[in-house]
Amino acid sequence: MFQRFIYLDHAATTPVHPKVLEAMIPYFSINYGNPSSIYSIARTARGAIEDARDKIASILGASNPSEIIFTSGGTESDNLAVKGIALANQKKGKHIITSSIEHHAVLHTMQFLEKQGFQITYLPVDKCGIIDLDFLKASITPQTILISIMTANNEIGTIEPIEEILKIIQDKKIFFHTDAVQAIGNLKINLQQLKIDALSLSAHKFFGPKGIGALYIRKGAPLQPIQQGGAQERNRRAGTENTAGIIGMAKALELIYNEDFENRQENIKKLRDYLIEGILNNIEKSFLTGHPQERLNNNASFCFEYIEGESILLNLDMLGIAASSGSACTSASLEPSHVLKALCIPIEISHGSLRLTLGIDTAKEEIDYVISELPKIIKKLRAISPLVQK
Amino acid sequence: MFQRFIYLDHAATTPVHPKVLEAMIPYFSINYGNPSSIYSIARTARGAIEDARDKIASILGASNPSEIIFTSGGTESDNLAVKGIALANQKKGKHIITSSIEHHAVLHTMQFLEKQGFQITYLPVDKCGIIDLDFLKASITPQTILISIMTANNEIGTIEPIEEILKIIQDKKIFFHTDAVQAIGNLKINLQQLKIDALSLSAHKFFGPKGIGALYIRKGAPLQPIQQGGAQERNRRAGTENTAGIIGMAKALELIYNEDFENRQENIKKLRDYLIEGILNNIEKSFLTGHPQERLNNNASFCFEYIEGESILLNLDMLGIAASSGSACTSASLEPSHVLKALCIPIEISHGSLRLTLGIDTAKEEIDYVISELPKIIKKLRAISPLVQK
Repeated sequence: MFQRFIYLDHAATTPVHPKVLEAMIPYFSINYGNPSSIYSIARTARGAIEDARDKIASILGASNPSEIIFTSGGTESDNLAVKGIALANQKKGKHIITSSIEHHAVLHTMQFLEKQGFQITYLPVDKCGIIDLDFLKASITPQTILISIMTANNEIGTIEPIEEILKIIQDKKIFFHTDAVQAIGNLKINLQQLKIDALSLSAHKFFGPKGIGALYIRKGAPLQPIQQGGAQERNRRAGTENTAGIIGMAKALELIYNEDFENRQENIKKLRDYLIEGILNNIEKSFLTGHPQERLNNNASFCFEYIEGESILLNLDMLGIAASSGSACTSASLEPSHVLKALCIPIEISHGSLRLTLGIDTAKEEIDYVISELPKIIKKLRAISPLVQK
Repeated sequence: MFQRFIYLDHAATTPVHPKVLEAMIPYFSINYGNPSSIYSIARTARGAIEDARDKIASILGASNPSEIIFTSGGTESDNLAVKGIALANQKKGKHIITSSIEHHAVLHTMQFLEKQGFQITYLPVDKCGIIDLDFLKASITPQTILISIMTANNEIGTIEPIEEILKIIQDKKIFFHTDAVQAIGNLKINLQQLKIDALSLSAHKFFGPKGIGALYIRKGAPLQPIQQGGAQERNRRAGTENTAGIIGMAKALELIYNEDFENRQENIKKLRDYLIEGILNNIEKSFLTGHPQERLNNNASFCFEYIEGESILLNLDMLGIAASSGSACTSASLEPSHVLKALCIPIEISHGSLRLTLGIDTAKEEIDYVISELPKIIKKLRAISPLVQK
């Protein structure tokens, strides 16, 4: 029997691109030397790591390759950026500003810092998920040392006004970190144009492997390491380098930001808009969550009244469609999404959330299939929902 | 031209075993689902991760698979164990005992804790690198909450008397952590026989991939996470799981601890002893460092008077022989080895250190080649050494 498989959860993770895997393979069993050693196969590994660093720095527009620190993924990058900057600058002040819709890797790190005596302001967002810039302006105090706002939200895809934030703080001595884990691969970021001090990214979000990420940290920005040990990464991140992972991440970044990037993004956006229209037109009491325009091109997120997101997912899975109700990282939790809560969506509606995120290979036929099947699923679930009777 | 290549730095890192890589491959581009998601390919990844956890728990003799936490490597495991136990138990006391020859992943973590108000006792070692058990006994106070002693030293291979330590603390409420990063793969550890509370391991030391490790933590031992974010690893280690790495680590552990383990170890030991004899007999003013018997079977470490370890390495590299002078992690530093210093080896001698570490594929012909070439190198270097004239 033919088993249909439609992957619409690219925000959760992506398959490793075959060319990425091909680039990684020689670093497992051939050029396996410890990059800190001095002999031939180790120097080959070291050379490849530094080439990867150069490549990543150049694609992001970093002025110096040493501004790239390799980590084990987005979560570690966020932890290193937020704790690293906060702890290195705490003598200047202990106030930090973030948003209420950050990924838990940032939010829970902030809560950790609160226990260490830091004061955290959580900016509210409007109903589309855009942070309140006036609230931001009003929150800044002489004690503010760090602002951490995500480039784009992982659940609803809303793109935050990073340029506006940078304008607000341009004459102030406040570090700016952005969790770009969901954004990198889906939009272009040029660090020469944006005076971002720290930026987190994770390879498995853009067709690279899991277990590898990076933190961009602007030269001169004080950073306290969070992992002690050897002198790797110029004493900023101890631990033997994950050579194959690093090579894979650089290759993935290079492939995604090639000359076809804009075209591909345009196509994904068209397909995504077609999906949104198809769903909103064919399912009553359905809403788009997040910003209608200022959103990642591959993100379509919805709420459907009267039903449970998890039931939608299980029914989609039976048809071979992979999707998620919010973020993958919180799926083990029964709590309603903190993001949808921050948008002031009532809990009974936010429970019926669905996130469909497209990839570079998503085909129109796949979207057509979702548009034809999802209304039937929603109808079926509403027929058995106790909430509809109310 | 035939390029000879003799790898004698298995303590620094090892090649990924072809069967390990084979086991990993399907988890890059096929079963790539985020293990926290609920659809089919994600459940496949989740299932494989839990199978790997079961396998690792079983090989180590852990009583419950939930006692295994996946990390990004040995350094993170050491950080998580030492900080995690110290911070979770600081209300009981703030005294920790460790040794002066730990890996920097433990030593620098201890220094970090000292800045947080912890008091650390660094146990001295004898000239073979064995910790002073009387000193240990005398150091224990009612405030002692944690003892962290490595299973075997990474530079000189000395195996520490873990059983004796456990006897000393058996009636005390003190947690015991061991950095087994260098030991796992080279000796058998059974956690059913040894009441160890926490044990660190790293896959790339036993023919697994880089960027993945694990921490065994005994059920019920309080542990404060060091990385904040999602709910992965039962809230003890946030971040999307490195599925391929986890699968690879379990496969590598299974391969190394198969029914041939004892035989292979016996062979490696014989070959290692042959190497030691060949070097000590053929090079004057050469010394074995570490314990003559209580050492890892694959470790042969030496000091040669009047010369620089780095010069030996460069000369060996020119012959296609990969070796190291101490640990790979400290090779960027010009400081003499803290391990050799703790053995009271004078600095002018410890500078001439060489570590040769064998692997499962090391052949007698390779050892013969080293025994025939190394004396010539040492002779040549001594001929140009300004130290010899003194």
